[in-house]
Amino acid sequence: MATDQNKFQAIISHCKEYGFVFQSSEIYDGLSAVYDYGQNGAQLKKNIRDYWWKSMTQMHDNIVGIDAAIFMHPTTWKASGHVDGFSDPMIDNKDSKKRYRVDHLIEAHAETLDAAAGEELIAKMNALLAADDLAGLKALIEAYKIKCAVSGTVNWTDVRQFNLMFSTQLGSVTDEASEIYLRPETAQGIFVNFLNVQKTGRMKIPFGIAQIGKAFRNEIVARQFIFRMREFEQMEMQFFVRPGTQKEWFQYWKEERMKWHLSLGADPAKYKFHEHEKLAFYADAAEDIEFEFPIGFKEVEGIHSRTDHDLGRHQEFSKKKMQYFDTEINQNYIPYVIETSIGLDRMFLLTVCNAYEEEDLTKDGKEDSRVVMRFPAKLAPTKLAIFPLTKKDGLPEIAKELMDICKPHFHTFYEEKDAIGKRYRRQDAIGTPFCVTIDHQTKEDNTVTIRYRDSMEQERIPLDKVKELVLNKINE
Amino acid sequence: MATDQNKFQAIISHCKEYGFVFQSSEIYDGLSAVYDYGQNGAQLKKNIRDYWWKSMTQMHDNIVGIDAAIFMHPTTWKASGHVDGFSDPMIDNKDSKKRYRVDHLIEAHAETLDAAAGEELIAKMNALLAADDLAGLKALIEAYKIKCAVSGTVNWTDVRQFNLMFSTQLGSVTDEASEIYLRPETAQGIFVNFLNVQKTGRMKIPFGIAQIGKAFRNEIVARQFIFRMREFEQMEMQFFVRPGTQKEWFQYWKEERMKWHLSLGADPAKYKFHEHEKLAFYADAAEDIEFEFPIGFKEVEGIHSRTDHDLGRHQEFSKKKMQYFDTEINQNYIPYVIETSIGLDRMFLLTVCNAYEEEDLTKDGKEDSRVVMRFPAKLAPTKLAIFPLTKKDGLPEIAKELMDICKPHFHTFYEEKDAIGKRYRRQDAIGTPFCVTIDHQTKEDNTVTIRYRDSMEQERIPLDKVKELVLNKINE
Repeated sequence: MATDQNKFQAIISHCKEYGFVFQSSEIYDGLSAVYDYGQNGAQLKKNIRDYWWKSMTQMHDNIVGIDAAIFMHPTTWKASGHVDGFSDPMIDNKDSKKRYRVDHLIEAHAETLDAAAGEELIAKMNALLAADDLAGLKALIEAYKIKCAVSGTVNWTDVRQFNLMFSTQLGSVTDEASEIYLRPETAQGIFVNFLNVQKTGRMKIPFGIAQIGKAFRNEIVARQFIFRMREFEQMEMQFFVRPGTQKEWFQYWKEERMKWHLSLGADPAKYKFHEHEKLAFYADAAEDIEFEFPIGFKEVEGIHSRTDHDLGRHQEFSKKKMQYFDTEINQNYIPYVIETSIGLDRMFLLTVCNAYEEEDLTKDGKEDSRVVMRFPAKLAPTKLAIFPLTKKDGLPEIAKELMDICKPHFHTFYEEKDAIGKRYRRQDAIGTPFCVTIDHQTKEDNTVTIRYRDSMEQERIPLDKVKELVLNKINE
Repeated sequence: MATDQNKFQAIISHCKEYGFVFQSSEIYDGLSAVYDYGQNGAQLKKNIRDYWWKSMTQMHDNIVGIDAAIFMHPTTWKASGHVDGFSDPMIDNKDSKKRYRVDHLIEAHAETLDAAAGEELIAKMNALLAADDLAGLKALIEAYKIKCAVSGTVNWTDVRQFNLMFSTQLGSVTDEASEIYLRPETAQGIFVNFLNVQKTGRMKIPFGIAQIGKAFRNEIVARQFIFRMREFEQMEMQFFVRPGTQKEWFQYWKEERMKWHLSLGADPAKYKFHEHEKLAFYADAAEDIEFEFPIGFKEVEGIHSRTDHDLGRHQEFSKKKMQYFDTEINQNYIPYVIETSIGLDRMFLLTVCNAYEEEDLTKDGKEDSRVVMRFPAKLAPTKLAIFPLTKKDGLPEIAKELMDICKPHFHTFYEEKDAIGKRYRRQDAIGTPFCVTIDHQTKEDNTVTIRYRDSMEQERIPLDKVKELVLNKINE
């Protein structure tokens, strides 16, 4: 798998330098695996979020959205299996007191071996992980004499499971205070609201419920920038179907979601499906959509056929009938569920990686280059930059009139300082698809120069066509 | 103060019945002071959020948005004063073990006294609260012989401060795990990112940073539906200005924010400013915008002149210079800050309360009524409902063609069952401003009946004008 760590590092730097992503609480030296979105990142993230929401809820007559709280009743996570099963095996070195995720510790060691031996070790580890064999994992670490990087010793504790959910105390009144969790996924907010939405919305199967929101996982080792964070945002949709029809709906949603990705203009060769080798015991199909990041093909979205498992568990734990009466076949049943689950932050990272280009503009022996973010126009944080050529002769006034015309329709940026070329490059770096310059000719014939980010071509168009041109391109 | 608890209860029921707001995790008997937004509520909330975001960031050239994480470095909350000062005085009854917020306990007792005595007690309490006199508060409770409602005794513990921040443990690796807080306000996410945004965005004072996001407070007694929740969403903007200009900017933002509220069409008599009687020690002005809910005038938004307090504290705790070099006056300074802070959930409640009407439609002795949600068209969750009069004769096909034309532009709803009158009433109840019916005449002359929610008037318009008419109304 071809990876390009240099490009990935360059993208991370660019995200920082141009206000896309900052380390959280950076003035306090940051918080591990937590990031803040800056002025350009926040708008790009919102545009991705809105594009998903619109394509799911507005464009599908039979999908509605909800917005459930991060706090949920703790029994939710017993029913979902997260209290008992949402954990990673960990081990501590007794000398350094350092704790490791077992799979990461073994993987790091495998990389120091030759290829065949490394693969053999990984295969052994995977078999033990699949069997939940904690003692076997410890024996494997000892057999390979894997050392702690800090103490250099092989003095290990037993392997233990560590739950990834964050917990906190709700309520202060003694008889009411209780331990609750920050949701580790948004899906359960949909399942517990299934009956309320179905009944008050008079929904008929098949139908979907979509949700966007924060989720939290106390990852032991969170790595690779915003790819795996402890606080992240999910965009999930649960589609409720008649039992027996789940295979065809799984196929439908696989195709529908891939179409959505391709509608954003990336090279189809950068996407692939990846079938899960091992299904969860309740699932009857599961595939990921993977994208080729500079660090290799990685999961962006999962499409899962979850059967009636989740609703069935909530029925068991809540004693409420999670059933639907299907008037077409005169039957009561617990619906089957197809889930589409995409990480908003990963989709952000995908968008940024796909857009980033260091372009060589050397011409006639004169060295030149630019960094350009080739965002699809509909996702770009700023759609149009308006530049008066100079700060006088009434040019800023004309530019500001154009601002007032465009602002209500899309994000518009105004700048009057520095040479035009410099201003263009700054807009390239944040991915603004269109720049318009107001010059002295504008005062004579009401035309402006529009400059296209991707081709860097320029043409003169009538001032009163600018708004329309930009609107057409961002709605394409 | 006139209040209407019956109307408030009717609104709460309506919110449940029509998919606006559900009790969180209701199948598990709910979670105290936490709510979920249903299919209509989620869209209404999103429309309010988007309207604020657009009016703040898109319409103001000098305001940018950010999206900081809920998790922040714990020192943030030492600097902000929340670790030491963000607490309520509480008292426990030793017999019932029940814990009370001291002010609520005393207020409840004051209501049992005659008006003058009640006011006197409240005045005494306020003086003690202002002086942080915990022993004095206990003495007051004892002097008035205030009893526990459960045990009926006056056997009280001392009064203690209880911090309202939720805490959790970040990280699992022993040497890294640390107690962090769920942010109790979004504002600090803006302050800690001040330097990053100012520098990477090349922002010149005066400028603002806006943010929307969840915040969490472990309220001891959370009451009044979604008015005071433990998990809620804030829309905050911090406007950075040159010291000495803060009074005029405070005035500017007071007026600007009131204009925003009035742009949503509510009766101006339902709004008023409320000046804080006691300012925080660092503030030099603070006023609330209050709205007349059925439960009385209540705070919806605060406008605060926070001086250089927050940036100054972060400079002190982080040892990073939180300064701005003002080229116009050749001076370095810590900017002064005007904050506008509005609760999204409260704005949602305001919108729902303002829209709700039980309308008497009795005519010619025939009793009739409807519940109509008179949302501004731009905030309504569904903009247009399309009804074929019958399920045959090609009418559904024409209706679906119209759906396809309208769907990409706004939320459109399709329904072909039940009598038209019934369908209209259901749309009234969720606040859909326009309904269009396709009937047999449509096939002859390409006209449809459009029915207006507020007036209930109907008129025939050309089929191909529907999209334009709705678009114009929602952009008004």
